[in-house]
Amino acid sequence: MTTSRIETRAVDYQDGNETMEGFLAQGGGVSGKRPGVLVVHQWLGITDVEQKRADMLARLGYVAFCADIYGKGVRPKTAQEASTLAGKYRNGERRALRSRARAALDTLKKMESVDANRVAAIGYCFGGTAVIELARSGADLKAVVSFHGGLDSPAPADGRNIKCKVLALAGADDPFQNAENLKAFEDEMRAAAVDWQLVFYGGAVHSFTDWQMDGKSLPGAQYNERADKRSWEAMKSLFAEIF
Amino acid sequence: MTTSRIETRAVDYQDGNETMEGFLAQGGGVSGKRPGVLVVHQWLGITDVEQKRADMLARLGYVAFCADIYGKGVRPKTAQEASTLAGKYRNGERRALRSRARAALDTLKKMESVDANRVAAIGYCFGGTAVIELARSGADLKAVVSFHGGLDSPAPADGRNIKCKVLALAGADDPFQNAENLKAFEDEMRAAAVDWQLVFYGGAVHSFTDWQMDGKSLPGAQYNERADKRSWEAMKSLFAEIF
Repeated sequence: MTTSRIETRAVDYQDGNETMEGFLAQGGGVSGKRPGVLVVHQWLGITDVEQKRADMLARLGYVAFCADIYGKGVRPKTAQEASTLAGKYRNGERRALRSRARAALDTLKKMESVDANRVAAIGYCFGGTAVIELARSGADLKAVVSFHGGLDSPAPADGRNIKCKVLALAGADDPFQNAENLKAFEDEMRAAAVDWQLVFYGGAVHSFTDWQMDGKSLPGAQYNERADKRSWEAMKSLFAEIF
Repeated sequence: MTTSRIETRAVDYQDGNETMEGFLAQGGGVSGKRPGVLVVHQWLGITDVEQKRADMLARLGYVAFCADIYGKGVRPKTAQEASTLAGKYRNGERRALRSRARAALDTLKKMESVDANRVAAIGYCFGGTAVIELARSGADLKAVVSFHGGLDSPAPADGRNIKCKVLALAGADDPFQNAENLKAFEDEMRAAAVDWQLVFYGGAVHSFTDWQMDGKSLPGAQYNERADKRSWEAMKSLFAEIF
């Protein structure tokens, strides 16, 4: 199912007492429930990059919803601010990260246009960590797809909570990945008998899907068109399986 | 392009003074040149398994040709015989393996129905090593796809001869792969700036595409339907890029 007219809007939702501002994209003039795809942002929060992905997903026939992990109005201005904020959620127990991701997932699943039994989550960089963390929380969804996300966990035993398929897409030359963390991820998936896949794209570094990254503003983070397109196709293949 | 009527036949060809017996499959009643796909066999030589893959490729619209690395009438009867024969080609300099694979590729490219500028090679297990070796010989083709093949090389510098895309598909729990060999392959691809991809399928061991393997006749070698289907889709995605 494809559609040419895409409707988008900001959507406020709650995580406890905190207000979040997500972004929704879906095909206009379409009736009936569709699969939903949560999109979790990079360390800058929701930007054009995530909104574009939501548009692309909506054109594939899905209801796409960009999660807001940081909270309404909380948008880091610099890499330094982003690093500090993302680190707050990524490090330690990750309880807050799970809670924020779960609130967004629940919001998506309750939407009238969404078939709550057919939902997946994708994420980029920080968001690629967040979606696997969402799976580790035991969330009920069909699959998570991590694009150049950190894959290791401070609590590997939580891998046993994972109920969904896991697809991890990595740049083979990503300096922000390391062999130990990759091994830890693989061992976690094996120990929990998860349905998992790990793909390495030769020649690709960190942020290979982000067309704004030129390898200069953040060394080791650069767009790679080939890996971008291939990883998107890999995601679509998995969606063809589950939806 | 798909077709329902598939024509198959044995094809004799030469590697120097030696006669080989390959197997051809293509759509019947189709005119015009089509992309060609070479299929290189597992250690038993051409069997039903390779012929079935050729049929599947022909149904996708390609001219599929099963290479015969061993020579006409040379078909090992037991795993022991197969291991010895495959070992002869796989070990050492691999000059004979390259020559045999190249003879099959040349035969395919000369076929009237084949567009010689649009040719790829796929291989399983022993054949998965053979197609990468074919690439290392500097052969002119668009891509090679290795399904649960050994990936390391006795002459890593030959990676610099590779002109085509390389897609390696591996069982994450394949006991016939090891971390050192995988690292050697990655380093070879990196050093030569090859367009390469490496995919790990969680829960899959060796021979994950071979529906005859039950994990008992050869421990650590077992069919895995999920990995079989996903790896076939990964191959198709690459073919969509190059053809």
